[in-house]
Amino acid sequence: MKRKITLKHIARELDVSISTVSKALKNSEEIGQDTKEKIQAFARLYNYRPNNIAISLKNKKTKNIGVIIPDIVHHFFTTVFRGIEQYANAKGYNVIVCVSDESFDKEVINMEMLANGSIDGFIMALAGETQLKNDYNHLKEVTEQGIPLVLFDRVTDEIHCDKVIINDEEAAYLAVKKLIASGRKKIALVTTEGYLNVSAKRTEGYYRALREHGLEVKPDLVLELPYQKEDDKKSEAFFKNRSMDAVLCVNEIFAVKSMGIVQRLGKRVPEDIAFVGFTDGILSRLSTPTLTSVDQHGELMGETAARMLIEKIENDHDQEEEESYETQIIRATLVERESTLGQV
Amino acid sequence: MKRKITLKHIARELDVSISTVSKALKNSEEIGQDTKEKIQAFARLYNYRPNNIAISLKNKKTKNIGVIIPDIVHHFFTTVFRGIEQYANAKGYNVIVCVSDESFDKEVINMEMLANGSIDGFIMALAGETQLKNDYNHLKEVTEQGIPLVLFDRVTDEIHCDKVIINDEEAAYLAVKKLIASGRKKIALVTTEGYLNVSAKRTEGYYRALREHGLEVKPDLVLELPYQKEDDKKSEAFFKNRSMDAVLCVNEIFAVKSMGIVQRLGKRVPEDIAFVGFTDGILSRLSTPTLTSVDQHGELMGETAARMLIEKIENDHDQEEEESYETQIIRATLVERESTLGQV
Repeated sequence: MKRKITLKHIARELDVSISTVSKALKNSEEIGQDTKEKIQAFARLYNYRPNNIAISLKNKKTKNIGVIIPDIVHHFFTTVFRGIEQYANAKGYNVIVCVSDESFDKEVINMEMLANGSIDGFIMALAGETQLKNDYNHLKEVTEQGIPLVLFDRVTDEIHCDKVIINDEEAAYLAVKKLIASGRKKIALVTTEGYLNVSAKRTEGYYRALREHGLEVKPDLVLELPYQKEDDKKSEAFFKNRSMDAVLCVNEIFAVKSMGIVQRLGKRVPEDIAFVGFTDGILSRLSTPTLTSVDQHGELMGETAARMLIEKIENDHDQEEEESYETQIIRATLVERESTLGQV
Repeated sequence: MKRKITLKHIARELDVSISTVSKALKNSEEIGQDTKEKIQAFARLYNYRPNNIAISLKNKKTKNIGVIIPDIVHHFFTTVFRGIEQYANAKGYNVIVCVSDESFDKEVINMEMLANGSIDGFIMALAGETQLKNDYNHLKEVTEQGIPLVLFDRVTDEIHCDKVIINDEEAAYLAVKKLIASGRKKIALVTTEGYLNVSAKRTEGYYRALREHGLEVKPDLVLELPYQKEDDKKSEAFFKNRSMDAVLCVNEIFAVKSMGIVQRLGKRVPEDIAFVGFTDGILSRLSTPTLTSVDQHGELMGETAARMLIEKIENDHDQEEEESYETQIIRATLVERESTLGQV
């Protein structure tokens, strides 16, 4: 069998990034003419075709589903995975996982590998770096070949496919509304640095709730932390120098860490500062005090994504027919625990 | 291409378990003659060969590594996975994960699927059910075909292959010794139900430390909990009705839950009861008080397993040559935090 050449090979041979190769092959204006010609010539020479084996095997079902998640340590993604597995196994499908580690290159490499005849369809949440680069050519290639794709949680409007999301904006809005109803007035936000779409939506919900209740929107009550690295110094400085009576955090790790910091600074939770997190995993249930948290129903999200994907795989209709896609919205619920007990 | 028939197909067609098919094809005495003949005839009819595509593709490198872990939610397995990935990616390999969910059948199905030409070698920790059944035919088939295999953490003497383990017995022994040195005398153990080899080794270390220090070994100070299900009632009854001044737990979830229960019963940690857990993940660092925990160096374990596997893959020597295997032992270290502070 002739060796299949991939984007990764081309990038390595010509010493350019995978993203540059991808854009050059799409004839993007962003890439200089010289580079583009070099890459296109190389691809022609080695007979590059996007996932060419996948095309030839398209009608052979593998009964495997490929899942690509940004992070295997994050509780939310592992619960979504469980939901996918439960539904898929019950329908006779196996599930293969690859982890992008929030890296664009790894996401592309994993997609190329799996699209290579190993799976019947993809379920994935976008890597942070992919959202930052805003480059979705690898997804477009897969969908253009007719390989079914379902995006969950971290999605993009750039790709036409089935999607499952939660009502992030509204969930944050309702959580902050509840804090206001219990008498809290100086509500801070702990979020991730800018480019993750889910954090951005939760931040919007936070601002909307404040505005609707006539509370001042103070940018200095918003703390942005790196997503995967820990930055305890930055958090400590934030909580030490500001006056607040409640905090909304966009995940439970931020929330439990922040509760620890304010407690060490001598504040009581929830008496002095109430806390609400997102994720509702084991940390929320086992922290002291236990954490009020937005349950994103990860398993339900996974089941829904698997159901949508398997329907697309099994209802393989005529190529001529217009594809139709839907976006399912899972409604998050607030699980109230000790960290928000009582009125102010 | 002719459709490949797998153990799973045979089991489904003949309405027997995968384990029965596997044993019948090995001519095991455990299976009745009638069933055996029926299964063997069926396998001959459909030209069953163990992972037959894998054999034909054996000399074609995929640059993929297959990882099978029992559980994707467990912090320890995800850190091992990170270590595997870091090493493998640096060497130009991709990593594919499948999850057995502690199920024998799923472990077999995942191995068959991946051995089907998708990967160059396996890294895996055995499912609880596989250890309980003590049936390793699926692993034997893979190694007999010359597909490299490295077992980590949950291993068995039945299979000749490279292995990476930690010094579980000694790590538990040293942790209990330390508790005794700080003046604790009534030391309880919270472990999993019997069949997981790592829990069994930690339990041995606990008993050895007690015996060596002339402390009474009291079976009623040992609490066995189901591995994945929660059983708070059983734990509460245990801690309510017994007198103790320290507890060793075989994982951090058991430890943090148990600390919560004794604190709700009005005991102070560490003043009244000291706690030591295994795993040393985010729960240990963020619990109140923070948890003294045995660090199993999951990332190092993963890196070691990946290094051993890639060496075997790349040093593909003569079939005639005798294979040699090694077992690497990672030494665990105790990370001391608030839950064991001070002398009694």
